[in-house]
Amino acid sequence: MREIFEAELKQVGDDLAEMSRLVETAVGKAGQALLTADLQLAQQVIAADHTIDALENELDERCVYLLAQQAPVATDLRVVVSALRMSATLERMGDLARHIAQVARGRYPSHAIEPSLHRTFEQMSDAAVRVARRTTTLLTTRDLTVASNIERDDDLLDHLHQDTFVAMLDGTWSATTQETVDVTLVARYYERFGDHGVSIAKRVTYLVTGDFADDRAVPSGTAGATA
Amino acid sequence: MREIFEAELKQVGDDLAEMSRLVETAVGKAGQALLTADLQLAQQVIAADHTIDALENELDERCVYLLAQQAPVATDLRVVVSALRMSATLERMGDLARHIAQVARGRYPSHAIEPSLHRTFEQMSDAAVRVARRTTTLLTTRDLTVASNIERDDDLLDHLHQDTFVAMLDGTWSATTQETVDVTLVARYYERFGDHGVSIAKRVTYLVTGDFADDRAVPSGTAGATA
Repeated sequence: MREIFEAELKQVGDDLAEMSRLVETAVGKAGQALLTADLQLAQQVIAADHTIDALENELDERCVYLLAQQAPVATDLRVVVSALRMSATLERMGDLARHIAQVARGRYPSHAIEPSLHRTFEQMSDAAVRVARRTTTLLTTRDLTVASNIERDDDLLDHLHQDTFVAMLDGTWSATTQETVDVTLVARYYERFGDHGVSIAKRVTYLVTGDFADDRAVPSGTAGATA
Repeated sequence: MREIFEAELKQVGDDLAEMSRLVETAVGKAGQALLTADLQLAQQVIAADHTIDALENELDERCVYLLAQQAPVATDLRVVVSALRMSATLERMGDLARHIAQVARGRYPSHAIEPSLHRTFEQMSDAAVRVARRTTTLLTTRDLTVASNIERDDDLLDHLHQDTFVAMLDGTWSATTQETVDVTLVARYYERFGDHGVSIAKRVTYLVTGDFADDRAVPSGTAGATA
């Protein structure tokens, strides 16, 4: 019984890492599609999102099956419940990558991002890819130094998000309304992406240490709203 | 044993309904704060959000305890797992109400919403309040006619969201960049609020009928991005 449980639990962990890998690919390609106005790449991200969704469904079914068949308690139970939560978070990160790709596709053959903010969004894209890559590493190794690196990149994403508001609102902004809308939305997608990474980092930290820093204390993109 | 389980399960249902009631109050007040530039009301919504967060934590702990102590199977298990999911969704709906209130607070004493879109946001606010109120009713009664009404209001929110893009991009828009940013973000908050309501409607429908229309098929606010 225990061996079956261990094998099932390992599969849950493998599925989470696989979702995270797909999210990493998606957000990397989405950023590239956005910054280079690459329609084909944007289409790829949009088309691949259903794989992430399907994996979430599978993973959830496996978790419910595990709960029903094995009735885990204590740490094992927390692992399964956390997996249910983390799969939803990863699925949402995949959606955000898809949204970024959809902006790129919607503006093609134009560039969605106004030239003066190209570098800012390049940095956002890089930070988001690191968040996703480290999430995979964290899920695979449970090395908590990786968790703090995720938080650092989330801070960077928050700062870059703020930078977009400063650029738009400092009085020199002369972009079109469409560009303003796109910058506002895409910056928010990246900022939320970082929040979700931190949410997973905190869950894994809790599973390892038993100490749960409340992920609801994470700022979630209201800075622009209050700017 | 069964009586204890039933009592605990009832408490889970009561907590979800209570969360939903708080979300209804929050989103109603947030909309009023936004449309009337009412700082005090905005502050109330922002301050009250931690109550929703605390209720989510309590509810999650109760669910984990239930899983550990009672090892439910079949429908009972699905109810508990769904409650874990729905509490996260309601918590997120509370966050969105708070974000709307933060925009109102950030612009005070000005109005955040440009006059020509006042009526559109009034309709969004009304639809969001109905979504929240019906979510409470659905959680309390499991009357599935309410679920389809939630989907109808979500469709309305999607249309109103689209209307904001049409207004901003039809060539006659002369608002400030700050107003463009605010309309873009607040309209997205409302649109996501509707999605979350539909996600709960689909979960309850599944619990009642066993038929789960995949809530990931719900459009999630990319319309503006692709417009």
